[in-house]
Amino acid sequence: MTTDRIRDFLNTRRPDGPCLVVDLDIVRDNYSAFSRALPDSAIFYAVKANPAPEILRMLASLGSNFDAASVVEIELALEAGATPDRISYGNTIKKERDIARAHDLGVSMFAVDSCEEVEKVARAAPGARVFCRVLTDGEGAEWPLSRKFGCVPDMASKVLGYANDLGLEAYGVSFHVGSQQTNLEAWDRALADARRVFDALLKQGIQLQMVNMGGGFPTRYLKDVPTAQAYGQAIFEALSRNFGNRIPKTIIEPGRGMVGNAGVIKAEVVLVSRKADNDNLRWVYLDIGKFGGLAETMDEAIRYQIRTPRDSDAVEPCVLAGPTCDSADVMYEKVPYPLPVSLTIGDEVLIEGTGAYTSTYSSVAFNGFEPLRSYVI
Amino acid sequence: MTTDRIRDFLNTRRPDGPCLVVDLDIVRDNYSAFSRALPDSAIFYAVKANPAPEILRMLASLGSNFDAASVVEIELALEAGATPDRISYGNTIKKERDIARAHDLGVSMFAVDSCEEVEKVARAAPGARVFCRVLTDGEGAEWPLSRKFGCVPDMASKVLGYANDLGLEAYGVSFHVGSQQTNLEAWDRALADARRVFDALLKQGIQLQMVNMGGGFPTRYLKDVPTAQAYGQAIFEALSRNFGNRIPKTIIEPGRGMVGNAGVIKAEVVLVSRKADNDNLRWVYLDIGKFGGLAETMDEAIRYQIRTPRDSDAVEPCVLAGPTCDSADVMYEKVPYPLPVSLTIGDEVLIEGTGAYTSTYSSVAFNGFEPLRSYVI
Repeated sequence: MTTDRIRDFLNTRRPDGPCLVVDLDIVRDNYSAFSRALPDSAIFYAVKANPAPEILRMLASLGSNFDAASVVEIELALEAGATPDRISYGNTIKKERDIARAHDLGVSMFAVDSCEEVEKVARAAPGARVFCRVLTDGEGAEWPLSRKFGCVPDMASKVLGYANDLGLEAYGVSFHVGSQQTNLEAWDRALADARRVFDALLKQGIQLQMVNMGGGFPTRYLKDVPTAQAYGQAIFEALSRNFGNRIPKTIIEPGRGMVGNAGVIKAEVVLVSRKADNDNLRWVYLDIGKFGGLAETMDEAIRYQIRTPRDSDAVEPCVLAGPTCDSADVMYEKVPYPLPVSLTIGDEVLIEGTGAYTSTYSSVAFNGFEPLRSYVI
Repeated sequence: MTTDRIRDFLNTRRPDGPCLVVDLDIVRDNYSAFSRALPDSAIFYAVKANPAPEILRMLASLGSNFDAASVVEIELALEAGATPDRISYGNTIKKERDIARAHDLGVSMFAVDSCEEVEKVARAAPGARVFCRVLTDGEGAEWPLSRKFGCVPDMASKVLGYANDLGLEAYGVSFHVGSQQTNLEAWDRALADARRVFDALLKQGIQLQMVNMGGGFPTRYLKDVPTAQAYGQAIFEALSRNFGNRIPKTIIEPGRGMVGNAGVIKAEVVLVSRKADNDNLRWVYLDIGKFGGLAETMDEAIRYQIRTPRDSDAVEPCVLAGPTCDSADVMYEKVPYPLPVSLTIGDEVLIEGTGAYTSTYSSVAFNGFEPLRSYVI
């Protein structure tokens, strides 16, 4: 997963300190794979996964649409060349003045999951399209979603009916099956819920148009995952099963699936030590940790693949920690990580599959460490 | 805990978006309280808690020393007016080239917890003072420390002996009883360990000079905690009990205890909603969350006191969440937080006791949200 281009860049530029390098060729390949796998779905790239201008510009030129979590992300997508009709304001939690700013910028599609949010959109973006997010259980996802977003299907019907009453266009339903979702049936269950909402709205005389199937498309970490093609097939079958020959417009919002495997973080071993002479577990400290961009190691949820210059040597498990004075800055401890016994202070390691949710998660200045630098090549 | 000065500042300036306001008067009071409580200990402010230049300048002028976690923090302390002899490089995980930079800047006291780190210091900062961190159990702490820092006392003796062999000054022992430590006996147990290391070194003909008692001094969150005075008394008694009439030099490193209660975060209610019509739990979404500076709500470890404009109204528990599209961005869910039933979209809330470990934890740009702004008044 560390491409030759990334390896060449690191060997030539030799940047000091930890950094993320993203290979645009891989992003382009991922975009093509999604397009081929789901040819009838519009791709809305989840900008939050990695908002690097080079990535946004390339995706805009390929015809991608954009899912933005904030006004800043809307502005980034516009700067990258997207027209406002290709941007969805996909956060269900928005200040009314931010909705107004998005409306001023020409954005006309908004996510909601409550009547309270519908009222804000009706006031600040009159006539806009809204889609309502439905709660899913996220079973099978590595980074499970809580109940933070969405509402139960019955309430979604009410929310969309209310939107229609307030002069908005009740446009569709969205769901998110959970990040890194490897259970293909999760889409089927969510689509069945979506169909229930379509039926309920039809009884109110409202024809919904769109199903936003969100993200959750996994990137390759340590485990093999079904390819985009297999996902596309399963999703198409689930759509047919639930909507028959009246399949609505569909949207997908890949974020991690678009950029996760395109990025590699170069880091350095700062210390290898033990806590006692008879300690059978090494501690390996890197110059990047939970607060430098690897926030998704929280609860050891995501286990990144780590390459070292000594991968042909024997391995032993170790605790892997970051460089800050914060005791919570430990990546893998409950399940120690196998690394070469010969690993030494000063060794450079490559943390693969880190193109998504790393550079922006990084702390602004925790312990005086600068935010993760990022290169897009 | 929201002082009149902070309230006046917010009412007058009316900053848009979430922000931290720190009242320097409270920091000054805290410094005085520590000085009075532990008159024989040198205060090394833990810069990582809040490195705002105004705070560092005031503490420098009051005579404080500084505990730095990185070269950047050393530079900040120097810029604030501290001389290098008043700065300790207190991180046990340092790149050799960072030790060399600190040495070039005149810093001559370094933390270690392994022979590997001693070797780096011996090469990059010949002749420097080192103190070795000893593992403590952290029992009673709200934000417990793991085994990340320190080694067992027997190994500490070896590490310090090795430092002496390599021409360094084996200077002392450090420990950290855990952040927000409310069990006064924790210091007694750690001091007993320190004494063991002193004795072991004396057998090698080395007289250690110093005990660095770290931080862990709690700030007032929801619970009342013993005052600095009570801490000082308990610590003095524990020193006498363990070292008799040969009490070594001592250092304390308050961070949270120096600035925690001096800061208040102003935030705004973005949405109040439910997930179903029959949902008996409200969700309250603020414009700040785990990735905007409230990282210490991880695992719901720290429960901040939250003031609202409707605190005289009846309260009901709610889930409290942040504004990002990340499902992990939820502050209090396992133990819902009681807030007024009448709380409404647009209300401003004050999150108290947030002067430490907030502004620097903040993500650099997650979901397009800007880092937490900070005002020191």
